[in-house]
Amino acid sequence: MNFSALHQQVKQQTDASLLQLIEELPDYAPSLKAAMRHALLAGGKRMRPLLVHVVGNTLDVPKKDQIAISMAIECVHAYSLVHDDLPAMDDDDLRRGMPTCHIAFDEATAILAGDALQTLGFSILADSPMSEYGDAHRAKLLSILAKSAGYLGMCGGQAIDLASTGKTIDIEALKTLHTLKTGALLRACVEMIATVCSTLDKEAETDLMLFANNIGLAFQVQDDILDVEGSNESLGKPAGSDEALGKNTFPAKLGLSGAKDELATLHENALQALARLPYNTDSLIAFSELLVKRDH
Amino acid sequence: MNFSALHQQVKQQTDASLLQLIEELPDYAPSLKAAMRHALLAGGKRMRPLLVHVVGNTLDVPKKDQIAISMAIECVHAYSLVHDDLPAMDDDDLRRGMPTCHIAFDEATAILAGDALQTLGFSILADSPMSEYGDAHRAKLLSILAKSAGYLGMCGGQAIDLASTGKTIDIEALKTLHTLKTGALLRACVEMIATVCSTLDKEAETDLMLFANNIGLAFQVQDDILDVEGSNESLGKPAGSDEALGKNTFPAKLGLSGAKDELATLHENALQALARLPYNTDSLIAFSELLVKRDH
Repeated sequence: MNFSALHQQVKQQTDASLLQLIEELPDYAPSLKAAMRHALLAGGKRMRPLLVHVVGNTLDVPKKDQIAISMAIECVHAYSLVHDDLPAMDDDDLRRGMPTCHIAFDEATAILAGDALQTLGFSILADSPMSEYGDAHRAKLLSILAKSAGYLGMCGGQAIDLASTGKTIDIEALKTLHTLKTGALLRACVEMIATVCSTLDKEAETDLMLFANNIGLAFQVQDDILDVEGSNESLGKPAGSDEALGKNTFPAKLGLSGAKDELATLHENALQALARLPYNTDSLIAFSELLVKRDH
Repeated sequence: MNFSALHQQVKQQTDASLLQLIEELPDYAPSLKAAMRHALLAGGKRMRPLLVHVVGNTLDVPKKDQIAISMAIECVHAYSLVHDDLPAMDDDDLRRGMPTCHIAFDEATAILAGDALQTLGFSILADSPMSEYGDAHRAKLLSILAKSAGYLGMCGGQAIDLASTGKTIDIEALKTLHTLKTGALLRACVEMIATVCSTLDKEAETDLMLFANNIGLAFQVQDDILDVEGSNESLGKPAGSDEALGKNTFPAKLGLSGAKDELATLHENALQALARLPYNTDSLIAFSELLVKRDH
């Protein structure tokens, strides 16, 4: 299967599994259920599930472990987008060309939907069928998910982002911000797969995590570049919104060309880490290419 | 130790442990850290930690398992209060006589603090030191916490509450609402302790959960009664706010005297379940008394 077909397959499988999960919930809170469905199924690129499956296939991790991990991560990612879009946060009306959750429903429902989606991520990881080896490592997986999502990861990064918006921060602080805000959850995709791989040696794990750290930051640099260069149509949201909000970004800090150099360096670091791995890393290389060359 | 001294001890231990946990977080997001501290340490009664310790002592569960469970539960409870108080939800400015989180900080920080506190609850349960038996049952504990906090528990109840505010619902729907919104997390305290008790037989577990279900609902009935009968001073927030908000409550549904009858029935059911347990249940009886006779 070529990489683009794999991405399509992961997207379809993730959409179908998440839809089923939501449909199975009882109907006693129909607005909340609909808002959770909206947030989970509004056309995401499923980059995190793709990363989980690509790393999982490379390390020969059982499919059901890959599925549990990717669904849990995607729920946490979806919750973060719902809350980031709220009026008190980034106040975005559109995401992926669709009304954001608080626009499609209301603010209270969007807050609750985000809350319940975060919980759902932990539920999935605690309860989904996994391999025997995966099952024995569930608590560790839950620990990684929590660490990457909370103050030590995504929430901490978002708080630094809020606090530094409209102010000038240095490039190291900007890297810390994005390493936490975007990088932590991407890193968790790789770390969780590494956790359920029974054959990974220490050295390979180190290189794999180096790959994860570099693509995690590269993802955000490319996001910042797209916000400058992209069109409203390709992005599915207004381009230039970072600048309008006074956000600290890599192009604002380094210039557009400096940001592209930074992206190229991160990409190169990721590829060098992959080159040292004792696996066929073709699909990991393809993932890195997709990440730095995407137009939305 | 008498029951009131035990409650004081649990309160002090919980406050100290939670404070330490927050202080140990790095300082890169100082507002978020301060908001989490505010939310966790603004004078809660620590009824859930008390319940965990009372049931844990009764079943002879190791102290460190009790501590991990009670701290995790309290983080999830604190997050729910922060989000419930938001302008888009109940729009409360005061809680326990103190400014609510979005008043003391701002709305964005309060949303994030709630988010990060939910995650912290899962982190604690995934990472805190536990007994060997507790450690072997971590994934189950995390599953119980997630189920009680999410759509199938607290978030679902809150969504029903939002959807039914200003409308008339029947008594069964009101019970479902509160069984989820308030009861689920109280029930989880007992269920988690039962999970890490290596000696509990099936019959005793059934009675223990019957006790938990009844006190879970009783807690909310008493809350509703206090909102009618209590003073601003004893409650630390404006009395009568349920009626002002058009909330469905037990007194609104059954009259004040009917609500008190309901409370007495639930209390009696809880005591009957306790009477069947092969343990010294004095402190569980005292907990039930405290719950139905508290004035705030």
